Amino acid sequence: MTENVRVAVVGATGYAGMELAKILLRHPLTRRSTFFLRGEHADVKCLAQLIPQLRGWGEAPCQPFSVDAVVKSGAQAVFLSTPHEASLETAPELLAAGMRVIDLSGAFRFHDGDIFEKWYAIPAASGELLNDAVYGLPEFYGNDLRAARLVANPGCYATSVILALRPLAESDWIDRSAMVVCDCKSGVSGAGKEPKRETHYVEVNENFRAYSVHKHRHTPEIAEHTGMTTDEIFFTTHLLPLERGILSTIYVRLAEKHSPEEVSALYGEYYDAQRMIRMHAPDELPELSHVAHTNFCNIGFSLNEDGRRLVVVSCLDNLGKGAAGQAVQNFNIMMGYPQTTGLI
Amino acid sequence: MTENVRVAVVGATGYAGMELAKILLRHPLTRRSTFFLRGEHADVKCLAQLIPQLRGWGEAPCQPFSVDAVVKSGAQAVFLSTPHEASLETAPELLAAGMRVIDLSGAFRFHDGDIFEKWYAIPAASGELLNDAVYGLPEFYGNDLRAARLVANPGCYATSVILALRPLAESDWIDRSAMVVCDCKSGVSGAGKEPKRETHYVEVNENFRAYSVHKHRHTPEIAEHTGMTTDEIFFTTHLLPLERGILSTIYVRLAEKHSPEEVSALYGEYYDAQRMIRMHAPDELPELSHVAHTNFCNIGFSLNEDGRRLVVVSCLDNLGKGAAGQAVQNFNIMMGYPQTTGLI
Amino acid sequence: MTENVRVAVVGATGYAGMELAKILLRHPLTRRSTFFLRGEHADVKCLAQLIPQLRGWGEAPCQPFSVDAVVKSGAQAVFLSTPHEASLETAPELLAAGMRVIDLSGAFRFHDGDIFEKWYAIPAASGELLNDAVYGLPEFYGNDLRAARLVANPGCYATSVILALRPLAESDWIDRSAMVVCDCKSGVSGAGKEPKRETHYVEVNENFRAYSVHKHRHTPEIAEHTGMTTDEIFFTTHLLPLERGILSTIYVRLAEKHSPEEVSALYGEYYDAQRMIRMHAPDELPELSHVAHTNFCNIGFSLNEDGRRLVVVSCLDNLGKGAAGQAVQNFNIMMGYPQTTGLI
Amino acid sequence: MTENVRVAVVGATGYAGMELAKILLRHPLTRRSTFFLRGEHADVKCLAQLIPQLRGWGEAPCQPFSVDAVVKSGAQAVFLSTPHEASLETAPELLAAGMRVIDLSGAFRFHDGDIFEKWYAIPAASGELLNDAVYGLPEFYGNDLRAARLVANPGCYATSVILALRPLAESDWIDRSAMVVCDCKSGVSGAGKEPKRETHYVEVNENFRAYSVHKHRHTPEIAEHTGMTTDEIFFTTHLLPLERGILSTIYVRLAEKHSPEEVSALYGEYYDAQRMIRMHAPDELPELSHVAHTNFCNIGFSLNEDGRRLVVVSCLDNLGKGAAGQAVQNFNIMMGYPQTTGLI
Repeated sequence: MTENVRVAVVGATGYAGMELAKILLRHPLTRRSTFFLRGEHADVKCLAQLIPQLRGWGEAPCQPFSVDAVVKSGAQAVFLSTPHEASLETAPELLAAGMRVIDLSGAFRFHDGDIFEKWYAIPAASGELLNDAVYGLPEFYGNDLRAARLVANPGCYATSVILALRPLAESDWIDRSAMVVCDCKSGVSGAGKEPKRETHYVEVNENFRAYSVHKHRHTPEIAEHTGMTTDEIFFTTHLLPLERGILSTIYVRLAEKHSPEEVSALYGEYYDAQRMIRMHAPDELPELSHVAHTNFCNIGFSLNEDGRRLVVVSCLDNLGKGAAGQAVQNFNIMMGYPQTTGLI
Repeated sequence: MTENVRVAVVGATGYAGMELAKILLRHPLTRRSTFFLRGEHADVKCLAQLIPQLRGWGEAPCQPFSVDAVVKSGAQAVFLSTPHEASLETAPELLAAGMRVIDLSGAFRFHDGDIFEKWYAIPAASGELLNDAVYGLPEFYGNDLRAARLVANPGCYATSVILALRPLAESDWIDRSAMVVCDCKSGVSGAGKEPKRETHYVEVNENFRAYSVHKHRHTPEIAEHTGMTTDEIFFTTHLLPLERGILSTIYVRLAEKHSPEEVSALYGEYYDAQRMIRMHAPDELPELSHVAHTNFCNIGFSLNEDGRRLVVVSCLDNLGKGAAGQAVQNFNIMMGYPQTTGLI
Repeated sequence: MTENVRVAVVGATGYAGMELAKILLRHPLTRRSTFFLRGEHADVKCLAQLIPQLRGWGEAPCQPFSVDAVVKSGAQAVFLSTPHEASLETAPELLAAGMRVIDLSGAFRFHDGDIFEKWYAIPAASGELLNDAVYGLPEFYGNDLRAARLVANPGCYATSVILALRPLAESDWIDRSAMVVCDCKSGVSGAGKEPKRETHYVEVNENFRAYSVHKHRHTPEIAEHTGMTTDEIFFTTHLLPLERGILSTIYVRLAEKHSPEEVSALYGEYYDAQRMIRMHAPDELPELSHVAHTNFCNIGFSLNEDGRRLVVVSCLDNLGKGAAGQAVQNFNIMMGYPQTTGLI
Repeated sequence: MTENVRVAVVGATGYAGMELAKILLRHPLTRRSTFFLRGEHADVKCLAQLIPQLRGWGEAPCQPFSVDAVVKSGAQAVFLSTPHEASLETAPELLAAGMRVIDLSGAFRFHDGDIFEKWYAIPAASGELLNDAVYGLPEFYGNDLRAARLVANPGCYATSVILALRPLAESDWIDRSAMVVCDCKSGVSGAGKEPKRETHYVEVNENFRAYSVHKHRHTPEIAEHTGMTTDEIFFTTHLLPLERGILSTIYVRLAEKHSPEEVSALYGEYYDAQRMIRMHAPDELPELSHVAHTNFCNIGFSLNEDGRRLVVVSCLDNLGKGAAGQAVQNFNIMMGYPQTTGLI
């Protein structure tokens, strides 16, 4: 465990990047973060110019991004909060320069480049890189993360669904002759910071809608990390009129009858030792307000009296456990810190 | 068709009753509505005292409710916007006095009293009355409604789900070996006007949660009017941080492969002639903003390229087509008026 | 009074234009509206393409805008819901072609072109045109409106403030040695439909801010129509996290002591005969929910026990009485219809 | 400076108390807080039962409240987050037992008991106690706070207004022949946690209203701590449809012409050394989003080009600097800690 490690953040101008900045600026073991900005923000001098909430406590110096500049900063770990394309280009160079990289884009989330190309419609990274990348879901890949050089931070929806579904799938509790339905709802910060018609206040306020039905890029991520096929899953996303949070309602028909206590016990095996997962008692379902502005994922369920129909509800903050918080959790593991450092 | 028919409304103080009052006060063929209030509001003199928006155009006179007073008002039709228990007591008396009754509660929605008693936990109405009652979903029971003496206005969620699901169920398109999942989300006006913790602004705002999982009373209504069993359905309700609207996302695996055009054609057979249903083209999904403050139900769908996995999205205003608007649509049919009178 | 008059609307694609379309499509005496669209929307065939809520009842035909096309449509009255610059160019041509024009922009609101040029920083219309234009505030200029050929529909904030302040100013009740403070708050639909950072959902939601302090263009409008100088007024605008409505809190020190009853009586002299103004009893203040989706302006006040410090609260819907509704009210007067036709 | 001081909180069940709990649980120098609950919550065992967000990191043990229990807890400082009446009763007993008390109610905010009785309509505390109490506005009473035994934590609106106004008032910059207008807007958490009609989601959402005009209890607090009289001030409060934050728009006519730079300089004299106050450059006005979930008060202004008409905008989080945050800031001063400990 090395204290006061230097870290770099590339791209802290989107909502996830801003959240990352706020967490790192309060992280007790890594006070020296440097922020590298791209594009229109390249000449910003300090983060507080971009993020007024930081004034007076987090006026972190910024630099125009270049691989050289990052190397010179002495950072041991680099967070990439950049578009897929930029991450694809930048990560290999940073890795080559000896840095450890935590990428928040989708660029390195699949071991199979074909899947990436099918769903993202851009060329995938090299097979070697994809092979080396560790999927940054600490509750399942904690051991691999410790020594990881490249971490692919999971998608927000994917995190929410995988955490709820994988214990059931891995334990063969799912009746695969029925569909598994993942009905997910997200706040607007998940749609990015760029003004567009879909995120105009008047269009979102007092409104609610489904989007990307059958087409959402997190579908193959969910399939890969639950061990199911994309054909067995209905995955649908909706836009909630609120800032932050994802609530996923997941419908599973169990292969055999179980009691609520048995369901609790199954989840307990997976998550009793995981501090960032908070399991609820049967029929006590989590709400978005429980997790907003945290790195927790709360999971609850309600089992029908028939013992077969199971509804699992999973809640997290899409900017916390769904993005920046989880990235820092991964970073903590990579550095040998307690997982929750700076997150509780 | 009798113009200027007199109508009575019992209980116009909840959100559905207030909406009903607003629609009736603008209804071109029934300007003479009398409002009968109960309980704490019995001494209110005019509706504008309770509903400030009505000042200056809808200061409708109110009277304390009694069956006698309703009879004396000369009303031919009576809307009951009252709790189940009150409707159970009042409807038989009004019917006996020769009036036609449209009841917005759940009291008369089941032909089988046992189902009512199981889900509502209060004694059901007489079998005769339940037998006579017509379920007020005009798109399916229009013929029966014409001569109906007692109309059971459907539940808001039930309307949303049945309209989306029944064409598929009735046509045997559903693969019943998989579950049908109805993931429904409603605005807060559906939770009633009574202040409580669950509807306090701070608890709802920036929050989202599931409720009544496996237990919602609209479950048997949906089963009865789609011809499915409650065992084949996952029906879950959620609370949205907005005032009005229900969006239901319905997941069906089709028994056989179909094309989007075939799905459109199937819905077209049912709804092309129905003015209050607006079908969307494949993959163009409806949003709550399309239907707020209207009596329309908008239905869209997205069929997976496998031709089997179908997501249907159904939107309505829970106070409009989900309650007061639909009640007036039923009333229009009973009176021989065009269905859309006062609703478009 | 001519029934079934044909009207034209130029530009129905902003929020005010959309509201205007909805009102005109339901207006009982002018069912034949034609909509002329400009710019990117010029090839839209029917309004329901742009405004999904209209599907099934208001699929009004649209045409690309040209002065010729408007003339050929046979419209007697034309609503211009266009930018200042477009109105400045178009209005004279339409007037020359014999049409009566109701302009919703700021182009013709000032008799003195210099004021317009100072606050809007574009060249003013000809003095003749400005002289002919009638300021479309029916409660004060009803007589002039009857025969008006060009009506300058007032600004939303200006309407709210003038209606509250003018009775006091005109009656010399104001102590002009103190400032008159107009603290105004508006919903986001007033900021237009164009996506921009300031109206992105995440920026507005759970936020509140002042804007255009000392610089808002409605300042000289308020001064001109209350008979005060811009120096005597503090006029500040704020952005509320909601869709529609303006609430103005106006602070006046009275020149002499008065009782609440005297204040009520003064307002009564002005507004008892005005159906679109709803005065509240002393200390019963109006709220935005009273006026949303209406053409009413509600005015209430609270007089300090010192008889001098008066707070007046004025509420209206910025798209209703603040824009489209008021335009139709003006139109009704021009056509000799009852003022409230289509508005209640 | 004593580290690891024990503190007690009485009443952590309202919104301010919950916020206080969250801050104290993260406070680096006082990890051992004990929470004493009253009334219906007296038998709650740990705070996470009441505040689900705390699960997994702040399951603080709770005890039923009694003065004895607080004494036995070994607390050196006690926060009272209780109603005025309870604070009036409890504070003297705790003081007598040797504890230092920070009271969040209005009970000890006035040196003159008559003012308290006039505005709160309950009997005031003893003159001695009122005399000893220090008004907990650190930016003005920091010296007194160091040794204070009883701190009266200021009202939320009062903090917002006094911080903006006092530099001007104290420096005789205000033209007192005009009124000073304080137009304040607050989020709903300021209205308390008790469900009531006024805070029902449907009543607040998409609504905005003024309340307590001429009658708000913070009026005399503002007068006392700015050195003005209640007659010179218009103080009006409004309810915003959002959870947290107060924005006050303050209108002052300056006694003499000044430049924006001079105004900045004046505020700089007061606040350059105050870390919890963030002054904005002229014409760059603060917004609620800048201060939500912080203990900062942001102050900006816009001076008219006449050099006399000054609009000052002051923003804070009503649960932060307006209540719990400020209470902890006061506590830090009393304990000799840096003021910002646990607050940044």
